[in-house]
Amino acid sequence: MDSPEVIGSVSELTSSPITILFQPLGRRGQVPTGLSVLEAARRLGVGLSGVCGGAGVCGTCRVVVPPEHREALSPVSQTERERLGEEEIACGVRLACRAIIHRPLQVFVPLESLTASQRTQVEGRQTPVRVDPVVVPADLRLSPPALSDPRSDAERIRDGLGRPVRLDLEVLRHSPHSLREWGWATRVVLRGDEVVALLPLGTPLMGVAMDLGTTKLAGYLLNLETGETLTSAGAMNPQLAYGEDVMARITYALQEPEGAERLRRAAADGLAQLVVALCNQAGIQPEHIVEAVVVGNTAMHHLFLGLPVRPLGLAPYVPVESAPLNVRARELGLPLAPGAMIHVLPNVAGFVGADHVAALLATRMDEADHPTLLLDIGTNTEIGLSVGGRLFCCSAASGPAFEGAHIRFGMRAAPGAVERVRIIEGRVYCETVEEAPPVGICGSGILDAVAELRQAGLLNGRGGWIEENKSGFSTVVSTDNGPEFILVPAETSGLGRAITINRKDVGEIQLAKAAIAAGWQILLEEAGVRESDLARVLVAGAFGTYIDIGHAVAIGLLPSLPLDRFEQVGNVAGTGARMALLSRAERERAACLARRIRYVELTVHPSFRERFAQALWL
Amino acid sequence: MDSPEVIGSVSELTSSPITILFQPLGRRGQVPTGLSVLEAARRLGVGLSGVCGGAGVCGTCRVVVPPEHREALSPVSQTERERLGEEEIACGVRLACRAIIHRPLQVFVPLESLTASQRTQVEGRQTPVRVDPVVVPADLRLSPPALSDPRSDAERIRDGLGRPVRLDLEVLRHSPHSLREWGWATRVVLRGDEVVALLPLGTPLMGVAMDLGTTKLAGYLLNLETGETLTSAGAMNPQLAYGEDVMARITYALQEPEGAERLRRAAADGLAQLVVALCNQAGIQPEHIVEAVVVGNTAMHHLFLGLPVRPLGLAPYVPVESAPLNVRARELGLPLAPGAMIHVLPNVAGFVGADHVAALLATRMDEADHPTLLLDIGTNTEIGLSVGGRLFCCSAASGPAFEGAHIRFGMRAAPGAVERVRIIEGRVYCETVEEAPPVGICGSGILDAVAELRQAGLLNGRGGWIEENKSGFSTVVSTDNGPEFILVPAETSGLGRAITINRKDVGEIQLAKAAIAAGWQILLEEAGVRESDLARVLVAGAFGTYIDIGHAVAIGLLPSLPLDRFEQVGNVAGTGARMALLSRAERERAACLARRIRYVELTVHPSFRERFAQALWL
Repeated sequence: MDSPEVIGSVSELTSSPITILFQPLGRRGQVPTGLSVLEAARRLGVGLSGVCGGAGVCGTCRVVVPPEHREALSPVSQTERERLGEEEIACGVRLACRAIIHRPLQVFVPLESLTASQRTQVEGRQTPVRVDPVVVPADLRLSPPALSDPRSDAERIRDGLGRPVRLDLEVLRHSPHSLREWGWATRVVLRGDEVVALLPLGTPLMGVAMDLGTTKLAGYLLNLETGETLTSAGAMNPQLAYGEDVMARITYALQEPEGAERLRRAAADGLAQLVVALCNQAGIQPEHIVEAVVVGNTAMHHLFLGLPVRPLGLAPYVPVESAPLNVRARELGLPLAPGAMIHVLPNVAGFVGADHVAALLATRMDEADHPTLLLDIGTNTEIGLSVGGRLFCCSAASGPAFEGAHIRFGMRAAPGAVERVRIIEGRVYCETVEEAPPVGICGSGILDAVAELRQAGLLNGRGGWIEENKSGFSTVVSTDNGPEFILVPAETSGLGRAITINRKDVGEIQLAKAAIAAGWQILLEEAGVRESDLARVLVAGAFGTYIDIGHAVAIGLLPSLPLDRFEQVGNVAGTGARMALLSRAERERAACLARRIRYVELTVHPSFRERFAQALWL
Repeated sequence: MDSPEVIGSVSELTSSPITILFQPLGRRGQVPTGLSVLEAARRLGVGLSGVCGGAGVCGTCRVVVPPEHREALSPVSQTERERLGEEEIACGVRLACRAIIHRPLQVFVPLESLTASQRTQVEGRQTPVRVDPVVVPADLRLSPPALSDPRSDAERIRDGLGRPVRLDLEVLRHSPHSLREWGWATRVVLRGDEVVALLPLGTPLMGVAMDLGTTKLAGYLLNLETGETLTSAGAMNPQLAYGEDVMARITYALQEPEGAERLRRAAADGLAQLVVALCNQAGIQPEHIVEAVVVGNTAMHHLFLGLPVRPLGLAPYVPVESAPLNVRARELGLPLAPGAMIHVLPNVAGFVGADHVAALLATRMDEADHPTLLLDIGTNTEIGLSVGGRLFCCSAASGPAFEGAHIRFGMRAAPGAVERVRIIEGRVYCETVEEAPPVGICGSGILDAVAELRQAGLLNGRGGWIEENKSGFSTVVSTDNGPEFILVPAETSGLGRAITINRKDVGEIQLAKAAIAAGWQILLEEAGVRESDLARVLVAGAFGTYIDIGHAVAIGLLPSLPLDRFEQVGNVAGTGARMALLSRAERERAACLARRIRYVELTVHPSFRERFAQALWL
C-alpha cells in the first residue's frame, strides 16, 4: 500500500504547493502535490471519514470530483473499481485515500463522508424566505429642543415619524442621552407601533436566532435588512450541571429549593454568553441587536421563561403555554437593545416543543406533496408526519442511550469517542472524534456497532450473542459480567483496558429504537398511509446528522426505504428560528402550524404496546 | 361670657347624651346637652376653626344648620346678629361658639370653617364618570387536562374565553398553581387582548389611583366594577430625605452617584407602602389589584419611571416623554396583580405634569362655558385657563415660601404651625394645627398674616412697615435684625421665644404671589380675556385648600373678583386619577387634553418682567 505520508514528504521537497478546495465546507488550503485527498483533508482539518485508516477497504472516504477537475487526480485505481460501482465512478466518486493530487482542484464531500462529529458544523438545510422582519428602521434628523419648542423627546420622535408610536420604557430611559450625543440624528427601530431601540444613524438592524437545546445551544447572528447570517456559534447548555436530560432537570426544578430559578438563570446566562460570543465574532455591540427568536423543547422553553414545569413532569404532561410569546429580552436577562423583544415560537405539547415547530417550518413539511416524515432523535424523539396537508406529531421516549447514557462505555461525541464502526472481513475498524485514542462510544458508534454486529451474524434478532456464527469470526469473550464484544482491545484503547459492548448495551439500543419505530408506525397508522408510501424521510438534529442512515434502517430505527428517500437535514430547528427572525409571514406560519398539527399521545395509543414489542427485534 | 366647659360639665350630670352629626365629614358622636357646637366639634375631633378661641369676635366658626334642625339649638344670640348678616341668619348660618345644643341635630361645616390642616382630609371635588375601566372580568369554569385533552393551560383559557388572548408572562408563571388550586374555576382579568390576572371566582376587580406629590402621596382604592372608592390614605413622600423640592431632587439625582436610582426606589417604596396600607384598611390583598393610575408633576413622573431628569433641570426644560404610558407594575416595583399595568397620565411640559392634566380632567375645565382659571399653588404653581374650548397653561416659579421654606419661622402645616391669623381691633389671634402651642408659621398662616397686616395698615404697598399707623396699634418692634412684627409673644409661644415676621418674610410672600399673579395675567393676555371675564376660579391642591381666599385676593395672589366666583376644589389631581382609573373614555380625554393644551413659557414671555414687577405690590 502506498503511504501518503511518504509520498507527501518527498513531494514537498520537489514540487510547488497546490490549492485544494473542499466544498460545501468552503475549506481551502495549499498542499504539496502527490498527497492523497484524504491526507490533504486531514492537513486542512476537514473531518473526512476513513474508518479503515486509508487502507481502501471501508469505502467511507467517498468524495465527488466535478468533471472539470477529474484530471487533477491520479486515475481511478483497481481498489476503487472494486469498492465503487460503475455508476458512482461515472459520477466522479473517488475514494479519497486512493486519489492522489496532481493539480489544483475542488472536491465535494458528501455529508455521509464527514466524520460524525464534524457534520453538526454544517448548517441545517436552508430554506429561502422573503426578508420582512417584525422590526423596521426609520432614519430621523430632528431639530433640538428650544424654549420656543419644548416638545418632549418622545413627541419629537413621533412628530418626526409622523405617527403616534409608543416608546418602550427602557428606550425612554436611554433616549435623552443618546439623542443629545448623536446631535438629534437617529435610527428609530419600530416593532409595530412601538419603538424598541434608538441606534446611531447607519447602524444595520441585527437579530439573533437561538436554539436552546437540552445539551447544546446554537446561536446565529443575522443582518435583518439583508437576511444574511453573519456568524454562528455553539455552546454547551450550562443547565447540564443540574442534570443530563429533560426529566433530570424537571426533577431538579421540583425538588431543589430555588432549583427552577437556578435553571432559569443558567439558561439565560448561557444564551447571554452566546450573544456576546456572536457579537465579538462579528465585531458588533449586543445593544445593537433589536430582535431575537428562541426555540427549544417544551421543558427548555418553560425553564428559560421561568414557567412552572411541574405540569410537564406529571401526566397528562400539559404545557403552561403553547402559543407564541413575545417577551422583553431584559425580562429574561438577555443583554440586547433596551426594548428588544424575544419571540418564542409556539410549542405543541409537553414533549413536542418550539424546536420541532421550527423544524417543520424550515423543512416546509406542511407543503409537502407526498407523505413526508421528520424525526429529531434524542432523549425524546419528536416525530412529525405530513400527509396531504394534514400534520401529525408525537414524542417517543427513546431515552438517553443515543447520547451515550446507560451504555457501559457510553459517552458524548467528545474527542476519543468511537463515532463510527465497520466490521470488514472479520476485522473491526473504529473511527473516533478528532482521531483521538478511543476512550468510549458515542451514540452513532453504538448504533453502527449494533448494526454491524447484527450484519456480521454476531447478534440474533432478539439482540443475543451468536457465539458460533457464520463468519467463524468472533471477538465475543466471556467476562464476569457475561459475554462481551471487544470493540477496541486494551492495546489500542486510550483507557488502558478494552472498550466492550455487552448484552445490556444492545438492549438499550433495542429499547430506544423500538420506541422511535413504534412512534412513526403509529403516526403512519393514524394518517392511514403505509411505510412504503413515504416519499421523504428527514432526519434532523445533531444525532440524526451523526448516524449512518443505512445502519439505522438496517436495525429498524428508520423505515425500510431506499436510501435516496432519506435526507439528513442538520439543525433545522436553528434554520426555522432564523426564518422566524427574518420574516413575519414565517412567524405566522409557525403559529398556524402549531395549531394545525394533531398531537398523538403514544402512551395511551391502543397499538403502542404491540408495535413497541415487535420493534424490539433487530 | 358663657363658659361652654362649665355648662357641659353640669349638663353631663343632669341630662342624657345627644347625637350630633357633622356633615359633609360624616363625623357622628354623642355629647351632653348644653354644649356649644364648637365644643362638641372639638370633642368629636372635627377641626372647626375658632381663631378667637370662642369669644364670638372672629366669625371663623360659621356652620350651617338645615331648617328642620334649627330648633335643636339655642336661639340666635345678639353676638351672632352683630357678626352675621341678616341673609346669613336666614340661611341657617350660626356661630358654632354661640349656638348651644338642646336636641339631636345635624350641622353642615363649610370648607372655610374647617381648620386649614383638616381641609385636606376632605375629598377633592367629585365628578361623576361612567364606570368603564380598561380591565374587564370573565368568569370561567374549565375542564381539567387529561391525556385525551392535553391542551396547555393558556389554550384552555383561550378556548374558555372564545378568543385569542395573550397571557402576560408573570400571569403564566402563576397560573398553573392557581388553576389547580381553584379546581379550574377562575376569574380572568382582561386588559384589551391580554390577561393581566387570574383571580379566584367572585373576587371583585380592584384598582388604585395615586397622586405622587413632591411632599405627599395620596392613594385611593377603588372597586372597578361599582366605581366606589373603598378607602383612601396619605403618606409623606420618602424622597423628602433627599431634598425638599423638585429642584433639590433633580440636583440630587444629577450630582449623587446612584442618586436617581435612590429617588426612583424611594418613590416606588412609598407608593408600595401606600398600596399595602390601602389594602390593609380594606382587608384585601395587593395581588387582587389589577390596574393602577399614577399622576404627579413631571419631575416626580420622571423619577418614579426612572427617566433621566437632566433635561428637566436645564433650559429648555423638556420632558423625556409627555404621552400617557402603560407600564407593568412589577417593572416599577409595585406589588399588584402579576400582570397589572400602571397607567401614567400624560404631562404637558417640564413643569406642567400629569397631576395638572388630572386636575383639568376632574374639573371638566375644557367643557367650561365661561372663562375658567385653575391654580394649583406650590413651589411651582401650575395654572390652567379655559376660554371657549381653548386651553392654556403655564408654570409659575412661586418658590417654596408657601411651604414654609425661606420664612424665618416658617414650617410645614404640622402640629403647632400657625395656620390662620386674624387681627381684630388691635388684637392678634392665631390658630395652630391641632391647637398645639405655636412653634412656627405655615404657608396659610403667613399669607393670612401679610394680608391682615396690610389691612390693619401695618404694611405699605411695597411691603415695608408703617410704624405709625392709623389704628395707633403696633407690635412691630426693633430687633438686631431690624423691625419685626410679633405674631406670637414669647409667653404663649411653644418655642419659649416670640414668633415674628420680618421684612424678608414679607418679601418672600411678595415674590411668590407676584410670580403666580404674573402667570395668570399672562394666560389671560394670551387668551385675550380680562380678569373680570373670569366666571370661575378653581383653587386646587393642599395649599389652595388651606388658604383664606379673601386674603389671597386682598394681596393680589388671586384675581380681584367676588368671592363667590372662587371654589376650593381640594385634591382634584387625585380625583382625576380616579376618573382615569374607572373610565377608558376619561383616559382618552386626558390624552386629548394634554395634546390640546397650549403651554406658555413665562420666562421668555415679553410681558413677564413688567407684570411680575407690578405684581410685587401688596
